[in-house]
Amino acid sequence: MKDLQAVYERLSFCFETRKFVDLRIILLDMEPADIAPFIENYLNDKEQVLFFRLLPKELASDVFVEIEADTQETLIKAFSDKELKEVVDDMFLDDTVDVIEEMPANVVKRILKNSAPENRKLINQLLEYPVDSAGSIMTTEYVSLSASLTVEEAFDKIRRTGVNKETVYTCYVTDRRKKLIGVVSVRDMLLSEKTELIAHVMDSNFIFAETLEDREQVALKFSKYGCLALPVIDKEGCLVGIVTVDDAVDVIQEEATEDIQKMSAILPNQKPYLKQSVFSIWKARLPWLLLLMISATFTSLVLSNYEAQLSAVLYAFVPMLMGTAGNAGNQSSATIIRALALGEVEFKDAFRVILKELLASFVLGLTVSAVCFLKLYFIDSLYNDVTLDVALVVSSVLLITVVMAKLVGCLLPLIAKKCKLDPAVVASPFMTTIVDVLSLIIYCSIAITLLG
Amino acid sequence: MKDLQAVYERLSFCFETRKFVDLRIILLDMEPADIAPFIENYLNDKEQVLFFRLLPKELASDVFVEIEADTQETLIKAFSDKELKEVVDDMFLDDTVDVIEEMPANVVKRILKNSAPENRKLINQLLEYPVDSAGSIMTTEYVSLSASLTVEEAFDKIRRTGVNKETVYTCYVTDRRKKLIGVVSVRDMLLSEKTELIAHVMDSNFIFAETLEDREQVALKFSKYGCLALPVIDKEGCLVGIVTVDDAVDVIQEEATEDIQKMSAILPNQKPYLKQSVFSIWKARLPWLLLLMISATFTSLVLSNYEAQLSAVLYAFVPMLMGTAGNAGNQSSATIIRALALGEVEFKDAFRVILKELLASFVLGLTVSAVCFLKLYFIDSLYNDVTLDVALVVSSVLLITVVMAKLVGCLLPLIAKKCKLDPAVVASPFMTTIVDVLSLIIYCSIAITLLG
Repeated sequence: MKDLQAVYERLSFCFETRKFVDLRIILLDMEPADIAPFIENYLNDKEQVLFFRLLPKELASDVFVEIEADTQETLIKAFSDKELKEVVDDMFLDDTVDVIEEMPANVVKRILKNSAPENRKLINQLLEYPVDSAGSIMTTEYVSLSASLTVEEAFDKIRRTGVNKETVYTCYVTDRRKKLIGVVSVRDMLLSEKTELIAHVMDSNFIFAETLEDREQVALKFSKYGCLALPVIDKEGCLVGIVTVDDAVDVIQEEATEDIQKMSAILPNQKPYLKQSVFSIWKARLPWLLLLMISATFTSLVLSNYEAQLSAVLYAFVPMLMGTAGNAGNQSSATIIRALALGEVEFKDAFRVILKELLASFVLGLTVSAVCFLKLYFIDSLYNDVTLDVALVVSSVLLITVVMAKLVGCLLPLIAKKCKLDPAVVASPFMTTIVDVLSLIIYCSIAITLLG
Repeated sequence: MKDLQAVYERLSFCFETRKFVDLRIILLDMEPADIAPFIENYLNDKEQVLFFRLLPKELASDVFVEIEADTQETLIKAFSDKELKEVVDDMFLDDTVDVIEEMPANVVKRILKNSAPENRKLINQLLEYPVDSAGSIMTTEYVSLSASLTVEEAFDKIRRTGVNKETVYTCYVTDRRKKLIGVVSVRDMLLSEKTELIAHVMDSNFIFAETLEDREQVALKFSKYGCLALPVIDKEGCLVGIVTVDDAVDVIQEEATEDIQKMSAILPNQKPYLKQSVFSIWKARLPWLLLLMISATFTSLVLSNYEAQLSAVLYAFVPMLMGTAGNAGNQSSATIIRALALGEVEFKDAFRVILKELLASFVLGLTVSAVCFLKLYFIDSLYNDVTLDVALVVSSVLLITVVMAKLVGCLLPLIAKKCKLDPAVVASPFMTTIVDVLSLIIYCSIAITLLG
C-alpha cells in the first residue's frame, strides 16, 4: 500500500508537468483496479476526462469498469460517441450491464446506441433479470463446444473465439438445441490425447445455476464446490450464460456487508464509506433509529406503570438487566442469522435450534446469575442497600431474562425465514425492543410480587 | 436441495440393503462436497468407516477433505496404515495441512509417518507459518516454468507435471535461484503462437502476496484484482507457494462470520452451528456476557448516585435514551469496522471519518430528537406527567447522546486499529457499556441542573 502512494505521487507529478510519455509508461505497469482510485481521488472532473483519454487503449475499458458510478457518469457525459463506443465495445457484457444499472435514463440510451447491434439485444436481455438473481450477475460470453469435436479441434476453437471470452478455462458442451450436456475444463483437455473426443473428456454431472436463482445461493455454490465458473441454464435446460468466480467473490463480500448493516439497524448501502454523502448516511440510518426510539418508549410506559411500587434500589438494576438481556439475545440472533445465510441451518432444523439454545441459555444464565449474585451480595452491598432478598431476586430475574432473550433471539430469525422475510432485517433491530420490554415486565412483576 | 434429500435416501437404502454396486454408481455421479454431509449426518461411527471404504478410489481423498474434523479423526483412527497412506498421498498439500491442524498429536504423527518423504518436509514447513498468514493457506503445488521455454514446450511441461497441481491455469516463471520473474496464464499461452518464448508471453508486473501477510489482506487482493491464484514469495523474492481462489473464498466467508460473531459479543468459532456442542456455545458466549454484565453494573452505580434527585417521570425515559444511544453508536461502529475490514478506510482517514460522523450524527440527532419532542409533548403527555420542560430536556439530551454515541462508535474502531488490536473485538461490545454510562451521566446531570 505504501508503494501505491508513491506511484500515485509520480502519476500526479507527470500529469501536472504534462510528461505524458512517462505517465503512460507508469500506467502500463499498473493494475486497472489501482488506476481507478487515482482518477477518483486525485483529479477534478475536467482532469478526470483528460487523464482517461491519456490511458493506453488496452487499459481504458478495464479501468472504466473499476471506477465508481458517479465518476463513470461524468466521463460518459464528456465522451464523444466514438470514444464511448470504443470503451463499450471493449467491455465484457456483464460489466456493461453493471454500468448501465447505475446510470440515469439518458446516459443508458447513449450507451445502448453506441453498443454493437448484436450486443444490444443481449444487454437488454440481461437487464431484465431481477436484481438479486443469477441472471443479473451472469455474462453471455463463454466458449461453447460440440461434443463431437476432438481435443485439438476444441483448442483451435478456443484460440479463434477465446480472446473476448470472460473465461476460457471451462468450456460448455451443448447440443443442437443449445441444451447444456456437459462441462469440460481446459485442464482435462490439456491432460488428454489430442485426438480424444470432447464427448469422452467432458463431465456430464456438473453443478449449475438457474437464471432466477438467488445470487447469494449461487455464490454459496462457489464456496461449497470450489469452482471457477458456473453455467446458468433456463427452464428448458438451455445454456444462457455463466457466472465467474470473481463475481461470486463480490457477491459474498456484498452480502456479508449487507447483513452486518441490517443487523446494525442500517439500510443496506454498497457505496464505500468515504464516498457516502452525509445525506445518504442520514437516509440509511434514520428509519431504524427513529422506529427503535419510538418503540423504546414502550419501556417508559412499562416503567411509569410500575414506578410507584418499585423501590429506588430495585430501579437501579433496570439498565443492567435490560443490557444483559439485549446482549444475550443478540448473541443468539446473530448466530442464527449467519447460520441461515450460510445455509448451515434451515427452517426444518428449528426444533434442534430451539432445544440447543434453551440448554445453552440455561447454563449461560445460571453462570451469569451466580456471578451476579456474588457481586451484588458481597461488593455492591458495600455502597448500596442490597439485601440478601434483593440480590436473590435480581439474580434469579437475570437467569429468566437470559433464557427468554435467547429464545426470542433464535425464534425471530427462524420465523422470518419461514415467512420468506429477511432474517437480518426482521430479527436484529426488533429483537432488542421485544427483549427490553419483556425483561422489564418480568423484572417489575417478580420484584413487586416478592419484595413489593 | 430437495433432489439431494432424495439422493441421500437412495444412498441410505442401498447401504442398508448392501447393494454396493448400485451405491457406487450413485456416488460416481455426486460431488465430494455433497457426499461428506451424508457420511456425517446419516451414519454412525462404524458405518462411516465401512461407507468410506466403499467410496470409489478416485473420490476417497476428495470426500475426506470435505468431512468435518471430528469425523476425519474417527476415520483415521479406524484406517490401516496402508489406507491412510492412500488417502494422504492423493490429497493436495494445503488440504493435508488443514487436516493436520485439527488433529491431536498422535494422529498427526501417524499422518506424517504415512506421507511420502518428499511431502513430509513441505508439510512441516507449511505447518510453521502463523495461523492467519498467507503461508498457512498456500499450497506448494504449482507449475513453474523457465522463461526460455517456448509455448509448446511449456504445454508439454504442464501435461507432464500438471496432473497433481492444484491449479494449472496460471504458471509461474522463475529464474535459476527460484526468484519469481513473471506470471503467465494458460489463456495467454493458448492465444499465442506455439513457437513464442515464454519470456515474451509472461507478465512481469504481477500481483503477489508475502508469506507472513495477513490472510484477510490476501483475500482482499483476490476481490480487488479478480485473480484465480496469487503467488506467495518470501523475503528474498523467491516463489514458495500459491494461494488459490477457492481458499480465498473460504477466508472471506470465515472472516465475515468471525466479524459478525465478535460484533455480537461471541468468541470466534468456525464450526457450523448444528455441530457445536452446548458446552462450546457456553464457552464462546460466556466471557463477553459476563464482562458486559459486570461492567453494566456501573450504570447501577450512576443511577443510585442520582436517584434521590431524579423524579419518577424523568426516570422512566432512562431505557429509551440508553437504547437509542446504543443503537446510534452501533450504527457507526459497525459501519467503520466493516469499512476497515474491507480496506475502504484506514487510520489516516480518521479525520475525515470523524468529521463525517459528527455531521451525520448532528442531522440524525436533530431529526430523532424533533420526533421525540413531538411524541412526548403531544402523545405521552396524555398518560404521563410530561410537561413542556420535561419534553424539551429529554429531547435535547437525546440529541447530545446521539452525537456522543456516534463519536464513540467511530473513534473506538479507529483507535483499536491504530493500536493493532482487532476493531471488531474491542469496539463493538465495549462501545455499548461506554455509551450507556456516558448517556446516563449526561442525562442525569442535565436533567437535575435544569429541572432538579
